[in-house]
Amino acid sequence: MLQAVQPVRTLDDFRALLKTLPGPDHAARSRAVAHESNLIKPPGALGRLEDLMAWLCAWQGRQPPRLDYPTVVVFAGNHGVATLGVSAYPAAVTAQMVDNFRAGGAAVNQLCRTFGATLLVRAIDLERPTANFVHTPAMTEDECVAALLEGMAAVPAGSDVLCVGEMGIANTTVAATICHGLFGGAADTWTGPGTGIVGEQLAAKAQVVARAVSLHRPAWRDAVDVLRYVGGRELAAIAGAVIAARLKRVPVLLDGYVCTAAAAVLEAFTTGALDHCVIAHVSAEPAHRHLCDRLGKRPLLDLSLRLGEASGAALALALLQGAIACHNGMATFGDASVSGPCQNQNVP
Amino acid sequence: MLQAVQPVRTLDDFRALLKTLPGPDHAARSRAVAHESNLIKPPGALGRLEDLMAWLCAWQGRQPPRLDYPTVVVFAGNHGVATLGVSAYPAAVTAQMVDNFRAGGAAVNQLCRTFGATLLVRAIDLERPTANFVHTPAMTEDECVAALLEGMAAVPAGSDVLCVGEMGIANTTVAATICHGLFGGAADTWTGPGTGIVGEQLAAKAQVVARAVSLHRPAWRDAVDVLRYVGGRELAAIAGAVIAARLKRVPVLLDGYVCTAAAAVLEAFTTGALDHCVIAHVSAEPAHRHLCDRLGKRPLLDLSLRLGEASGAALALALLQGAIACHNGMATFGDASVSGPCQNQNVP
Repeated sequence: MLQAVQPVRTLDDFRALLKTLPGPDHAARSRAVAHESNLIKPPGALGRLEDLMAWLCAWQGRQPPRLDYPTVVVFAGNHGVATLGVSAYPAAVTAQMVDNFRAGGAAVNQLCRTFGATLLVRAIDLERPTANFVHTPAMTEDECVAALLEGMAAVPAGSDVLCVGEMGIANTTVAATICHGLFGGAADTWTGPGTGIVGEQLAAKAQVVARAVSLHRPAWRDAVDVLRYVGGRELAAIAGAVIAARLKRVPVLLDGYVCTAAAAVLEAFTTGALDHCVIAHVSAEPAHRHLCDRLGKRPLLDLSLRLGEASGAALALALLQGAIACHNGMATFGDASVSGPCQNQNVP
Repeated sequence: MLQAVQPVRTLDDFRALLKTLPGPDHAARSRAVAHESNLIKPPGALGRLEDLMAWLCAWQGRQPPRLDYPTVVVFAGNHGVATLGVSAYPAAVTAQMVDNFRAGGAAVNQLCRTFGATLLVRAIDLERPTANFVHTPAMTEDECVAALLEGMAAVPAGSDVLCVGEMGIANTTVAATICHGLFGGAADTWTGPGTGIVGEQLAAKAQVVARAVSLHRPAWRDAVDVLRYVGGRELAAIAGAVIAARLKRVPVLLDGYVCTAAAAVLEAFTTGALDHCVIAHVSAEPAHRHLCDRLGKRPLLDLSLRLGEASGAALALALLQGAIACHNGMATFGDASVSGPCQNQNVP
C-alpha cells in the first residue's frame, strides 16, 4: 500500500513530494462508519469520538484501527532571533530542556508514561542556531532540507499514531512570523506572550515579526520558501515528520501553536496536506485559535495549555485511546439483547 | 478529618446535611499551587491541568494528590413519564443497558478498562418506574429518601475520585423538568433531542416539561422538593452520591446533562454544594451548556457526546490522570539544571 518515494535532496524534491501525497482509504473509513452505527448507542451519541474513528481508519488504512504503538516526537532547535530578547527565557534553556526530556523530568515524559506512548527527542544542531531572520534568511536551502530530512527520518515504522511537538526558545516568534508570512493580516494578530512576555517586550516581538516578513516577502515564491526564510530547524523537522507520517499511513496529532504553524506551511502549499492531522489542543497563545480557524480545524481539547513539548498532543492521545476502546470493544445490537429505537417514531 | 454525620431518614435530614457541608482543605490547595510553581515550566503553562490539581488537593485534603482508585458509578432508573413517548427508545432499554453494563459491552465499560477505573452499576427499582409527574409527584418522600440513600451508599471508602453517570429512558425529560423548575425560563430552552427525537415529538416533550412544572410549582418549597416532585430515582441517587463524596473527601467528575441537572438541585439548595465537583464534558444536548453557565462551571471537554452512562466523566478521568502524573512526576527547577526566566525582563 505504501508508495515508493523519490529521495528528498532539494526543496524542489520536497515540493514535488507535496504534490503527490496519498489520499485516505475510503473503504476503511466506510467500514468504520458502518461499524459505529451497529454499536449499542443512539446513532452519533459518541460525537467526535466517532469522527475520530472514521478519520483514524481512513488514514491508517485499516478497520478496526490500531493504537498499540503511539509515538511522540519532540523536535528541538535554536533560533538566531532569540538574541533580540523576544522570549522570557534565555536560549540555553532549549538544551537544558532536552536534557530534562532525556532525564524523564518534563511534562511530556509523565504524559507519555501515563498513556503508554514512546517518546523520541530529536535535538537538531542546538549549538548552531538558525540565522537571525531580521537580517538574513533563517536557513540556507541545504540547512532547511537537512532539517526536513531529520523530521522525515524520525517517524518509526509501525507507529499507529504520531504526536509531534517542539522545544525551542523564541520559537513562538518564529511561528508568528511564518503565520504572518503565510496569511498576512497584522503582525500582532499572530504574536503572543509565548512563555510569558508582556507590555513593551511583546510589542517589540510583534515588530520583529513584521520586520522579518517585510524583508523576505519579496524573495519568497511559496510556502516552502517561507519555511526556509523565517522558519527554524525544529519547525522544518515537524513539517518533514508530518509528511513522512502521511506516506507511512500514520495519522498525526498536532500540538500547539508552533507545531501547527510548521504544519500550516504544508497546507498553504498543497490544500489537503493536513487531512491526516488533527489539532490536539488549542493553545492559550491567542494566535493559535486564529490559525486553527484558518486551517478549518477544530481542536480536540481546550485546556489553556501553553507549554509545547507535545503536551497537548500527548493528552489527546488519551481521547483517541478511549475512542478506539469503544470502537473495538463495544457490543453491537446484534451481540446483545438491546432494543433499537421505537419503530413508530421519527428517529434520525 | 471526616465529620460524623447524622443518618438521613427524611428529606429534612438531607436538607440539614446540605447546610453543614465540609469545606475545602485550604492548606492542601496552597501546597499544590506552590508545588506547581516549582515545576520546570513557565508559570501557568499547564493551564487547566494546574487548576485541576489545586482543586483535587483541596477536596481530597492531601498534597500530593492521589488517583490510584478512581470509581465510576452509573445509576439507572425508570420513569413514569416515559409512557408519554418522550424518548426515541422504549423503556425496556434501561434494564437491557444495565445488563449490557454488567456484561461489559457498553462504552463506559471500555472507557473504565482503558483508564483503570472501577465500574459500579446501581439499578434502582427498574421494575417500579416513578409516577408520571404530569399527574402526580414522581416520588413519595420515602421513595426519594430511599434513592438518595442508594446514592450515598454507592461511594466506596477509599475512592480517590468519583465519576457519576446515569441510564434511564426518558431521563432527559426529567432533567429538563428539574432545570425548568429550578431556573425558570422557557421550557424548550431546557428540552432537547435526547437520544434523538425531532419535530413534533420534541415539541410535545417540551410541553410535558412545562405542564409538569406548572402542576407542581405551587406545592414545592425548595430545590429538594423539585427533586422529589419531578426527579427520578437515578437522579436522586446521583445527588446522594455527590453529597456522600463531599463528606468522604472524594472529588467528583459530573457527566452530562442529566447528571448535572441532578447535581444542580444541591447547588440551588446550598450555594457551594458543588464546589468539589467538576463538569467533565458538555453534552451535545443543547440545554447542558445553559446549565453549565448557570452553575458557573466550565466543562473540561467538549466532544459532542450525548450518551450519558458516565462516558464523558470517564474520558475526563484521563485528563486528571495526565495532570496528576505531571504534578507528582515532573522535575522541579531545584532538581534539574534549567534556567529560570531572564532576570532583566518583565515576566509575570
